[in-house]
Amino acid sequence: MADELRQAIVQKHALTMLTVDTEQDPSVPSEVDNYHSLFPLEPTPENPLQKSSTFGFVTSCYKAIKYKDGLPYCLRRIHALIFAHDYYAGAETMMSRHFQNPNNNYASKAKWNGGTARQNAGLLPESLIWTYVVQLTSALRCIHTAGLACRVMDPTKIIITDKSRIRVNGVGIFDVLGYDNSHANPRAHMQQYQQDDLVALGKVVLALACNSVSSIQRDNLHNSIELVLRNYSNDLKNLILYLLSPQQRPHNVNDIMPMIGARFYTQLDAALLRCDVIENEMSKEVENGRLFRMVSKLGVINERPEFSLEPTWSETGDRYLLKLFRDHLFHQVTETGAPWVDLAHIVQCLNKLDAGVPEKVCLMSRDEQNVLVVSYAELKKAFEKCFSELSSAA
Amino acid sequence: MADELRQAIVQKHALTMLTVDTEQDPSVPSEVDNYHSLFPLEPTPENPLQKSSTFGFVTSCYKAIKYKDGLPYCLRRIHALIFAHDYYAGAETMMSRHFQNPNNNYASKAKWNGGTARQNAGLLPESLIWTYVVQLTSALRCIHTAGLACRVMDPTKIIITDKSRIRVNGVGIFDVLGYDNSHANPRAHMQQYQQDDLVALGKVVLALACNSVSSIQRDNLHNSIELVLRNYSNDLKNLILYLLSPQQRPHNVNDIMPMIGARFYTQLDAALLRCDVIENEMSKEVENGRLFRMVSKLGVINERPEFSLEPTWSETGDRYLLKLFRDHLFHQVTETGAPWVDLAHIVQCLNKLDAGVPEKVCLMSRDEQNVLVVSYAELKKAFEKCFSELSSAA
Repeated sequence: MADELRQAIVQKHALTMLTVDTEQDPSVPSEVDNYHSLFPLEPTPENPLQKSSTFGFVTSCYKAIKYKDGLPYCLRRIHALIFAHDYYAGAETMMSRHFQNPNNNYASKAKWNGGTARQNAGLLPESLIWTYVVQLTSALRCIHTAGLACRVMDPTKIIITDKSRIRVNGVGIFDVLGYDNSHANPRAHMQQYQQDDLVALGKVVLALACNSVSSIQRDNLHNSIELVLRNYSNDLKNLILYLLSPQQRPHNVNDIMPMIGARFYTQLDAALLRCDVIENEMSKEVENGRLFRMVSKLGVINERPEFSLEPTWSETGDRYLLKLFRDHLFHQVTETGAPWVDLAHIVQCLNKLDAGVPEKVCLMSRDEQNVLVVSYAELKKAFEKCFSELSSAA
Repeated sequence: MADELRQAIVQKHALTMLTVDTEQDPSVPSEVDNYHSLFPLEPTPENPLQKSSTFGFVTSCYKAIKYKDGLPYCLRRIHALIFAHDYYAGAETMMSRHFQNPNNNYASKAKWNGGTARQNAGLLPESLIWTYVVQLTSALRCIHTAGLACRVMDPTKIIITDKSRIRVNGVGIFDVLGYDNSHANPRAHMQQYQQDDLVALGKVVLALACNSVSSIQRDNLHNSIELVLRNYSNDLKNLILYLLSPQQRPHNVNDIMPMIGARFYTQLDAALLRCDVIENEMSKEVENGRLFRMVSKLGVINERPEFSLEPTWSETGDRYLLKLFRDHLFHQVTETGAPWVDLAHIVQCLNKLDAGVPEKVCLMSRDEQNVLVVSYAELKKAFEKCFSELSSAA
């Protein structure tokens, strides 16, 4: 797990750093408004005027760095309008993760005729579907409680990071695009939109359970429900039926809770466990920042040219001590004189320096004529004094 | 948040490192079985024969390091028997966090006579109580599902880390102490123990809501429930009544879910958000690890005495380039020649070096006679070549 987490983090960093050579690919603007280093997050449509199936406009989506804070953002351009969202490195849409791999494509496997033998073939684990349901209903609950609607509950706008963390992308865009300030009450349709959100959620869940977006087409609906019935729990079937059925009274996202039931515990336990794991890893890594700052400070002090003629830069002064310590730190050799490279030695010495322990260390000059025996406590004092002198001269 | 998290981690590290001078404090054994560096986690009782109110034996509890893996553990000694548990740095018992601070002591504030004015004085926020309820019921659910019982659901055995993360300590000890291998079915009493767990949970929740352990005494029970009624939601009151009421049929931990209701969403959102925050911090720290390794490698290469006479150590060789780069990295000066210390400059240059970007950098020799214009890509090549030469010579 630890290595997996580290790799995931390193990969996210690499993705965040990706850039396009705008000379080679002139279709990508070199900068937009306050953002630079644009990188396309969606494939360029074959027809440049092809409209987004969600928003009904020509749109494009980029990762970009904001000049002001140097942080990455996700930009969605709709005509001249640009929406800047948080950027999640390595995020995929639910569409691309679950519905566009031909091997996962429900229709292509002709499961509609499926007997018991293929019953579970290629279907998603029920626990994963509940993970999504809990997060999506949580998002809707948050939005609806604020008196708003989501309006983009669709596999192309749901993004997945890591194994199963979900976010809804493009929320609020319809509110901006459709804003009509001549209307007395811009939220007049909100209740209807909220009901639409719940139907849209039902379709997402049904598509996930059938592993196919075509499962939600009217003609397939009966067979799709049958398939859910055969392969999943009653709760999941009931949830889908509740969301997709014509309403007597307005549906409410809180009504879904009893169907989720004790599965909440599983979700919460998994989330808390993940926190523990990451925090544990983090506690190992926090040391790195401290060590990096120490080595950098040492680099700033050592071999500084402009001080080389000063009287304090003598064979016994603080800086000389630190020069010899630098040699001790980095230039170890074996008995035969071969270089001996060991990061553990460097880490250990730096930790002792940082702690200022009373332990003594034997530092030798390059001509082997001078041998100084000093404690790490003395070295620490010299280190701090030199650096503060440098800083105050700055 | 970020700084808070970092401080918490640093503090946990310090707590994990705590040791006792066993010469000064001979009551602490210097080692036990496979463990060393013992540090007491509970105050030494005034009477060394004082028995644990929970287990009915003389017990003691230590942090210790295991010889085999170097990791910290929590040891609980009961006579000659030792239980080794995971160690959580900075953990407190629920008893010490919520019930032993005199300012938090319910009885001392005479809240029993309380009017509306003191109604909310010193009471815990309801959301915190639910956070505990969700975690404690989750623990019981896990244990009961396995056909076992907890048997230590008590404020002195519930430990809290960070703001509100809960764990139950000492689980399984009673099963060991009371094991009777002459009995045909050692789990005969399990169902009764499970029911006892639920009653014990009810007492913990009532004590939290009243902020006093004396609230659960029989004589105070009526007043305690009144207090919950006045200050908290109906759900919380119902939960407590359900757990403490005499049962017609066996109670089940899953029955509690509807009373928790939509609060599960709050819990889960908080946990997921915390994961995001920690992971974000972690990704910064992983970068520091990379930077630290780079600076260390550079330190290993630069100013290495044993290579100073080699022909490749010329004024144009790779090592000379890296020497000038070192100056560029660490020895910047302002226009007036004063030292200019900026960690951001160091980080930026190292990142460019690591990425091997085509950007050029102007490196100047100390006598200002040589000016070399090289790309970071070339520097990276030189850096890797020098280090691999050193490593292979080692």
